[in-house]
Amino acid sequence: MTSTTDRLEALFASRVRDVVPPLFGAAGEPVRPLISLSYGLADPILFPRAELMAAAAEVLAYEAAESLNYAMSYPGLTDQIVARLQAEGVAAQPEHVLVGYGSGQILALLPEIFVEPGDIVIIEAPSFLGAVRRFVQSGARLISIPVDEEGMNVEMLADTLRDLAANGQRPKFIYTIPTFHNPTGVTMTLPRRRQLVDLAAEYGVPVVEDDAYIDLRFAGEPLPSLAALDQDGWVIRVGTYSKILAPGLRIGWVHARREIIDRLLMVKAEGTTGPFITRLVARFCADGRLERHIATLRQHYAVKCATMAAAIRRHFPAEASFVMPAGGFFIWVQLPKGVSARALLEASRARGAEFLAGTACFVERERGDNAMRLAFSFQSSERIEEAIAIIGSAFADL
Amino acid sequence: MTSTTDRLEALFASRVRDVVPPLFGAAGEPVRPLISLSYGLADPILFPRAELMAAAAEVLAYEAAESLNYAMSYPGLTDQIVARLQAEGVAAQPEHVLVGYGSGQILALLPEIFVEPGDIVIIEAPSFLGAVRRFVQSGARLISIPVDEEGMNVEMLADTLRDLAANGQRPKFIYTIPTFHNPTGVTMTLPRRRQLVDLAAEYGVPVVEDDAYIDLRFAGEPLPSLAALDQDGWVIRVGTYSKILAPGLRIGWVHARREIIDRLLMVKAEGTTGPFITRLVARFCADGRLERHIATLRQHYAVKCATMAAAIRRHFPAEASFVMPAGGFFIWVQLPKGVSARALLEASRARGAEFLAGTACFVERERGDNAMRLAFSFQSSERIEEAIAIIGSAFADL
Repeated sequence: MTSTTDRLEALFASRVRDVVPPLFGAAGEPVRPLISLSYGLADPILFPRAELMAAAAEVLAYEAAESLNYAMSYPGLTDQIVARLQAEGVAAQPEHVLVGYGSGQILALLPEIFVEPGDIVIIEAPSFLGAVRRFVQSGARLISIPVDEEGMNVEMLADTLRDLAANGQRPKFIYTIPTFHNPTGVTMTLPRRRQLVDLAAEYGVPVVEDDAYIDLRFAGEPLPSLAALDQDGWVIRVGTYSKILAPGLRIGWVHARREIIDRLLMVKAEGTTGPFITRLVARFCADGRLERHIATLRQHYAVKCATMAAAIRRHFPAEASFVMPAGGFFIWVQLPKGVSARALLEASRARGAEFLAGTACFVERERGDNAMRLAFSFQSSERIEEAIAIIGSAFADL
Repeated sequence: MTSTTDRLEALFASRVRDVVPPLFGAAGEPVRPLISLSYGLADPILFPRAELMAAAAEVLAYEAAESLNYAMSYPGLTDQIVARLQAEGVAAQPEHVLVGYGSGQILALLPEIFVEPGDIVIIEAPSFLGAVRRFVQSGARLISIPVDEEGMNVEMLADTLRDLAANGQRPKFIYTIPTFHNPTGVTMTLPRRRQLVDLAAEYGVPVVEDDAYIDLRFAGEPLPSLAALDQDGWVIRVGTYSKILAPGLRIGWVHARREIIDRLLMVKAEGTTGPFITRLVARFCADGRLERHIATLRQHYAVKCATMAAAIRRHFPAEASFVMPAGGFFIWVQLPKGVSARALLEASRARGAEFLAGTACFVERERGDNAMRLAFSFQSSERIEEAIAIIGSAFADL
């Protein structure tokens, strides 16, 4: 008789027949004795613990019946999201907002509503590794458009859309991180933003604007978001509280046309996002507390970014180059010609520090080995300095 | 030129082309001036607000770095789930547990990993309306097996499985609520439980055991769960904290073979369940607090169930019959011959009370109009008495 495993195997739907292991193990990230600059974690010393405690106590004291029973997402949180979007110039409406368990959930659900096997999705190269991974898993055919110092190369995008249209092909969406891009840190220029929004309307292709870092600006003036420039409803704006409050609360959101929100609700297995956690976040954010907290974060992360940049200039070979970011969590370093990021990573780990090799940020895994992503968000300035010195010394091992 | 709506429409994947509206409106349940016995909400006076406040303060004081940053579900909660399953006689292991945003999320993900259009799923008739809805939406071909006073009619299940096997067909899973069944309140007998587990192994069909109410026993001795009887790993045990702590926290779980857990993780869009909320629940439940809370709930809900049963006997026609439940949230009433639940519902609403017409609990919506589900969980004993008197008076209007 065959084993239970063998008998069970035949029952799985084809979409999950082969197991794809999760990005992080189910048992939690491995404990690393290394100084890690690999991931964009938040700085724990900035967590507003006392204010969150007060917010939790208030929710349980005044809103227990609404927050602890079966109920929808708290509409007051949606109203706060709409108010922040309106302040940014977006013609936002509450019915166009869906709150999710982190923006990563929203990014994973978008292919569910748009992509059937073989459909085209356009992505920046490089891009956010979580999105790369999810979009690949969706069965989409991914087309990469390069990012340069002015953001996504929109001229190349225009050529690509024209060629596809000539073949009768329309991509399902274009994914971009226009502001403080992950991983490169660059911000798309205003002319390119306008051109991108125009292309979306011209070709009828939604643009997924992932603006996870938009509030964390260290220098310069804000540019209008794609959603603020959009006249025809082609921009799907994705946002998150992970960078401006706390990732562990798992709250993100999407603002899009109602047709899209309706479909996202259909594939969001658990329905709307829980009443307790949405009320907790809204309580914390009320009365200007969120904006004051963001002001603190901006100052703090700006210092760590400057510390990292100075350390790179001091410890890395002169041929290593980077664009100084005006916000966000990352510095993206182009390595000197012939230096492999993966080889440097191995040498750095042996010496006690690590980073993300650029290869993780491309659909085509052979690309990106001449670049590295360094997160300044998590470690203290002292540890950043130390880690960059270690990585700088590892160049000698290659 | 065509509108954005029209141009967008063609982009949606076929699985979401037609919008299925959510069970409850996106803007929250409508405010009802009626006394509602329709849904199995928890009784708000039983929410342990002070202890949850203390647990939230402890998490933020002692575990802020782990609970507020990017992290996996808290393994300590998984350990608590395993310990409770082991106490029940299940050979449970932490690697076989996945925590989700409510057991409803788990029930929605199970068809994702098993069902392709046309695949067979076996469900009880009647059954939990949320599961009926999700399974219908999955595109499965649903086969209903009746529930009688001893639970699912396992003899009829055996016949069905034999006939299907003779045609080379194997259902993807069998969904059952063996203990304090929703909506009927009945509990599957031990001989039927044994037979069901044997059938699962014989035919190689997983049994999804939804034991949402298992801890809320008012009378009699616990029976072994299907998972406790299972020797070969065919039982997928689904559980929840919604009935024993608070639905609004949105925490449920599944215990199943690792092959199944791996697949569920692939389709759970947001990855594991957030570190803050899982730590909050685990903190509350520690040190015997959950078991003490459950003891309180059992006494309280037993009183409300008895109140409702007495009121039904007093106010309903003698031909209305029900099986007195030994636990759970519901009484299922068979109406006198010729009485339509939908007609009675309309008359009751006009008089100020409502319930769930039995039709909501069947795959085939023409069934169940001769039965009603009455939830005693949410309303106070006084309001239950009042509502049952109102509904009883509405029989006169038919």
